[in-house]
Amino acid sequence: MSPADLRERVDKALHEFLQRAVAPLAGISEDLAPFGAVTEAFVMDGGKRLRPAFCYWGHRGAGGPDSDALVRAAASLELLQACALVHDDVIDSSDTRRGAPAVHRRFAAIHRSEGWRGDPEAFGSAAAILLGDLALIWADTLFAESGIAVEALQHAFPIWDSMRVEVMCGQYLDVVEQARGGGSVERALRVARYKSAKYTVERPLHLGAALAGAHGELLTALSEFGLPIGEAFQLRDDVLGVYGDPAETGKPAGDDLREGKRTVLVAFALEGGSEAQRETLRRLLGDPALDDDGVTILRDVIAATGAPERVERLIDERYESAQRALESPLLDPTAADALRELAAAATRRAH
Amino acid sequence: MSPADLRERVDKALHEFLQRAVAPLAGISEDLAPFGAVTEAFVMDGGKRLRPAFCYWGHRGAGGPDSDALVRAAASLELLQACALVHDDVIDSSDTRRGAPAVHRRFAAIHRSEGWRGDPEAFGSAAAILLGDLALIWADTLFAESGIAVEALQHAFPIWDSMRVEVMCGQYLDVVEQARGGGSVERALRVARYKSAKYTVERPLHLGAALAGAHGELLTALSEFGLPIGEAFQLRDDVLGVYGDPAETGKPAGDDLREGKRTVLVAFALEGGSEAQRETLRRLLGDPALDDDGVTILRDVIAATGAPERVERLIDERYESAQRALESPLLDPTAADALRELAAAATRRAH
Repeated sequence: MSPADLRERVDKALHEFLQRAVAPLAGISEDLAPFGAVTEAFVMDGGKRLRPAFCYWGHRGAGGPDSDALVRAAASLELLQACALVHDDVIDSSDTRRGAPAVHRRFAAIHRSEGWRGDPEAFGSAAAILLGDLALIWADTLFAESGIAVEALQHAFPIWDSMRVEVMCGQYLDVVEQARGGGSVERALRVARYKSAKYTVERPLHLGAALAGAHGELLTALSEFGLPIGEAFQLRDDVLGVYGDPAETGKPAGDDLREGKRTVLVAFALEGGSEAQRETLRRLLGDPALDDDGVTILRDVIAATGAPERVERLIDERYESAQRALESPLLDPTAADALRELAAAATRRAH
Repeated sequence: MSPADLRERVDKALHEFLQRAVAPLAGISEDLAPFGAVTEAFVMDGGKRLRPAFCYWGHRGAGGPDSDALVRAAASLELLQACALVHDDVIDSSDTRRGAPAVHRRFAAIHRSEGWRGDPEAFGSAAAILLGDLALIWADTLFAESGIAVEALQHAFPIWDSMRVEVMCGQYLDVVEQARGGGSVERALRVARYKSAKYTVERPLHLGAALAGAHGELLTALSEFGLPIGEAFQLRDDVLGVYGDPAETGKPAGDDLREGKRTVLVAFALEGGSEAQRETLRRLLGDPALDDDGVTILRDVIAATGAPERVERLIDERYESAQRALESPLLDPTAADALRELAAAATRRAH
């Protein structure tokens, strides 16, 4: 199962589910057409399908067989992710996502083109909040109706629940950290752990493994791989958020700086910078009006504190630790190979 | 089972569940304490527990037995409702709910008292969006872990799913109707049907009945009661939103008018009013700065169009039709009596 083949199967499962899920909306009201169409466009357009891949290979790693039901259950993670992203973009007032207008901006545009009353942005946020809720509900429906046997689903439900709670808690901690102004490496790492490491990697692996009846030692082995690689993934994302190519990240350059994201990278810069550097960081980070010059200044100051090298070291350590965990005799070797590839791709390293 | 006894059991089930659900948050971070505390305060404080009551009596009406598992499953509807209300208050920028500050306002106050950076209102909305997501997830957990047998849960899941989708669609249609400026009685009635009649009454009844294994004719009989009484309930709520006592509604007088809610009452006023009356309605409805004098003017104009009487007639018709439906021989007589009482209470009528 190549990564591309798996992605295609996940996309197919999502497409088929959304066709079925959106259809009844037309019976309620034609006014719901944009609601269904925007959901489909957002879910189907892009996304690396990383969480379904970890779920799939967690299942195979635990000795579970390939099946379309498994792919459907794994695909449900993309609907949960759609909720998280759509709500996150409302929270951050982000303009773009995956290189296209954020969902709340798409609804604001509908409001404008219809010439409706009131504030288009407020309408956009309202619609995006409700669309995110719908995606969260649909995630649940697709997971429960995936065709996986009821006993296996029952065994996996506690993980499904924990994962959903953890991502919302991680998002909240992120918002609090931003409000607090950051500065703590420890707290920034905790946000990365809950928002990303557990949610993006460890829990999807556990979910897939639990659907194969796994528990105990095998779940621990998957955590020993999943947590470090998930943290490395988030750390890489933080670096790309500041230094990455917009064509690759799908977000305008400097967006993370304008939002004032309190990442581990920023915490290192605040911790290791001189008084003057810290002053610049405090002044410019989170300034919504930050222009290209401001972005360049921030990039240079962060680089001058040595923070990027420290983050790269953390990524390396975590990557190595994850690689060692894959040598566990508990894991199916084909799955371990696939996870090795996913780990490299997720942290943007050569093999 | 008196209404007060049932409410107490639902409250107990919610309290026990939230204790269990909130506990793991402390293990993630002490920063999550307000997140758990506000959820508990919001869910436990007030609410008529109408949806759990309809679910409970739908079950009994279908011949299902009383049980604590049933009460827990019914109580999960209050967590779904918490999500709907918390998100609705963000969407409408409402200040109060159930006579207390809305959840987003509570978090804005936390932001202020901590002296955090950025806009307190934006922080409040972010936290409330995430708290609503958490409530939606927890609704699902409580429902699935209620202790109801797996086969019965499986039988009821499609209703659980439809109900959740319908409420979000109803909310979206409401937002669209408000943006469009209203004026269509038909569209306003459709919003009332999806946002309230189905979500508040019909689906909870179906859910309870399905948990007792019911299908077909019995569900139809419950719809024949539930849809009209649910519409009557929303129509009564719309009238109270304009003419009600704030001590009873828990919302400041005139809030619905300031928000510009496009209810059936307003649609009748726009349809039946003179050109001058319509002009006044168009000008003042939805004006966030509307003062007490403006509220009085709107109340008088709506009354002068004869809209309140037309709404009362609709309420009467629906109430009578629901009463007749309770005579169905398919329904357990004890449950039919309880539903008769609930119907009277929900539409604020003398028996």
